[in-house]
Amino acid sequence: MTIQQVLRETAKAVDPIMLRYLSRGVGRDFRPIVTHQVRAGGKRVRPALTLLCCQACGGRLRDALLPAAVFELIHNYSLIMDDIIDHGELRRGRPTVRAEYGDTQALLAGMFYREVIGEMAVSLPISRKIYALVVNAVKQTIEGERMDILFEQDGRGEDYIAKHRYKTVTPELYFKVIMKKTAELIKAACLAGAVAAHAGKSQFKAISTYGEKVGLAFQVIDDFLDIFGQETGKQRGKDILEHKLNNAVIVYALPKMASQERSRLMRIIRAERVDEARLRQAITLLESTGAKVKVQMLAKRLVEDAKKSLEALPETPARESLAELADFIAARLY
Amino acid sequence: MTIQQVLRETAKAVDPIMLRYLSRGVGRDFRPIVTHQVRAGGKRVRPALTLLCCQACGGRLRDALLPAAVFELIHNYSLIMDDIIDHGELRRGRPTVRAEYGDTQALLAGMFYREVIGEMAVSLPISRKIYALVVNAVKQTIEGERMDILFEQDGRGEDYIAKHRYKTVTPELYFKVIMKKTAELIKAACLAGAVAAHAGKSQFKAISTYGEKVGLAFQVIDDFLDIFGQETGKQRGKDILEHKLNNAVIVYALPKMASQERSRLMRIIRAERVDEARLRQAITLLESTGAKVKVQMLAKRLVEDAKKSLEALPETPARESLAELADFIAARLY
Repeated sequence: MTIQQVLRETAKAVDPIMLRYLSRGVGRDFRPIVTHQVRAGGKRVRPALTLLCCQACGGRLRDALLPAAVFELIHNYSLIMDDIIDHGELRRGRPTVRAEYGDTQALLAGMFYREVIGEMAVSLPISRKIYALVVNAVKQTIEGERMDILFEQDGRGEDYIAKHRYKTVTPELYFKVIMKKTAELIKAACLAGAVAAHAGKSQFKAISTYGEKVGLAFQVIDDFLDIFGQETGKQRGKDILEHKLNNAVIVYALPKMASQERSRLMRIIRAERVDEARLRQAITLLESTGAKVKVQMLAKRLVEDAKKSLEALPETPARESLAELADFIAARLY
Repeated sequence: MTIQQVLRETAKAVDPIMLRYLSRGVGRDFRPIVTHQVRAGGKRVRPALTLLCCQACGGRLRDALLPAAVFELIHNYSLIMDDIIDHGELRRGRPTVRAEYGDTQALLAGMFYREVIGEMAVSLPISRKIYALVVNAVKQTIEGERMDILFEQDGRGEDYIAKHRYKTVTPELYFKVIMKKTAELIKAACLAGAVAAHAGKSQFKAISTYGEKVGLAFQVIDDFLDIFGQETGKQRGKDILEHKLNNAVIVYALPKMASQERSRLMRIIRAERVDEARLRQAITLLESTGAKVKVQMLAKRLVEDAKKSLEALPETPARESLAELADFIAARLY
């Protein structure tokens, strides 16, 4: 199977589970609101990772289906809440939950997701281990989102953020934040597969490393595409427009810049409105530092490390697919 | 022990548990935000109910401490989220989490509460039963809050609410909504005590009825005090100022009013701004219908029903305290 087929099959297996649990005990009027986010689709990378990691550790696909749905639902939960926080209007070309139904309904829908996630997790025979993964992943994601917001340079009209925001970002801090905001959940999705397979210690370790490296690569590449991407379907330079300092390209470009250029870039990032010309100027400034190649290499190394960790697992089609999935993520770089 | 002493002792036992769990694995900067809501205090009625119901069913106090903390934390979780939804500024004379730290931090703090609630619940030996109570209570509270908002007559600037709001409310619908938004959580707090005590079927049933009736009485009395209360520490007529139709006094007054008076009242409830004179006029209109006595009697009957259900339990000091707690709630009526 190609990775595209794996992802399609994953959606076919996991989407009905999510929709079934989301529809349980929900009022008739609330149902379209609650199912909106899941019905909007998505790549389903996280549940594919759970299913493949389970099989790569010798487990049965069917034992990983519910855990896979749990982790995709956590991802969707965080998207609903993030869109409230960021006033997000569109996702995959469709209105977000808050854009369609308003902030109040979106918040209540998000809270409802968290109940369903718990219901699914505790219904498993391996519930305690899965639940520990769930709680840790969500806590880390919350803390990551929190830190990420504090790297915004405008303060979004909230005193607390204006007062507490970070004015600089180092590579160490950058990796700490993306580990929390993105990689921990992806790692947990992988580990849930290992738990479902009752994997041994060495397999568990291999999956843990794989998940972490893939998760970090995922965010680094997202950052890269935000600045240099073509035809991604997203607004180019969104991080700059949203005044965010916490993007891999910016993190690696800033120390390479002469103080005059750095000031010019920071003025654009801090500006209330950035027109197309200024945005292009910022991207040119960033490119001139060599940060583009630096970040490409960084992402490539993370993907190679992820694939290398798979060597501790037996040679199976699932292991092969995990390696291909890592390559698939890296392929967006070129 | 007087009820005041019971509540004080409950706070002394339960607050440190909540604060300990809330502080686990939380970043240094996030800690004051996360602990703000719990440190603001509260009557601690819900955990007192858990502890007393456990003891009234022959259980040990110490087995109910963690479940008690869980249900008080759920209450605090719902307060944080409600304040975001209602733009609440003050609670017990102190700034709400969102007023102190902004909506973004408050939302992330609320989400963090939900993780801690889950962590506590699954750490219990009786976790599956307690967790089922938690999920059901939160789901019902969400749906109740959702319905409650749809009884607001202004639409709060959200299209969805303006389009879907209810324009009338019957006693049946009123009780359905307050069962969900208030009584389900109070009932669950009581049942958690019974679960911790490994109560038998008949005890379980008695506690269930007690919790439901006390929960309903609690909200009916809150509604009563909102309109007729003196020195409650809250703004009088808050529900009218917030354009809410879903208040027991209004529900019972409306059908008793001549159509002219009803229109006058509805105009005030729907008005964007209500000055002191108009608010007093609305309260006088409501009082003239006899709804005051009607609601008092209703609350009193609920409290009597709650106390009656306790007869199925053995005579113990804990049972005595549960009866006193019901009276304590009713005493606010006079």
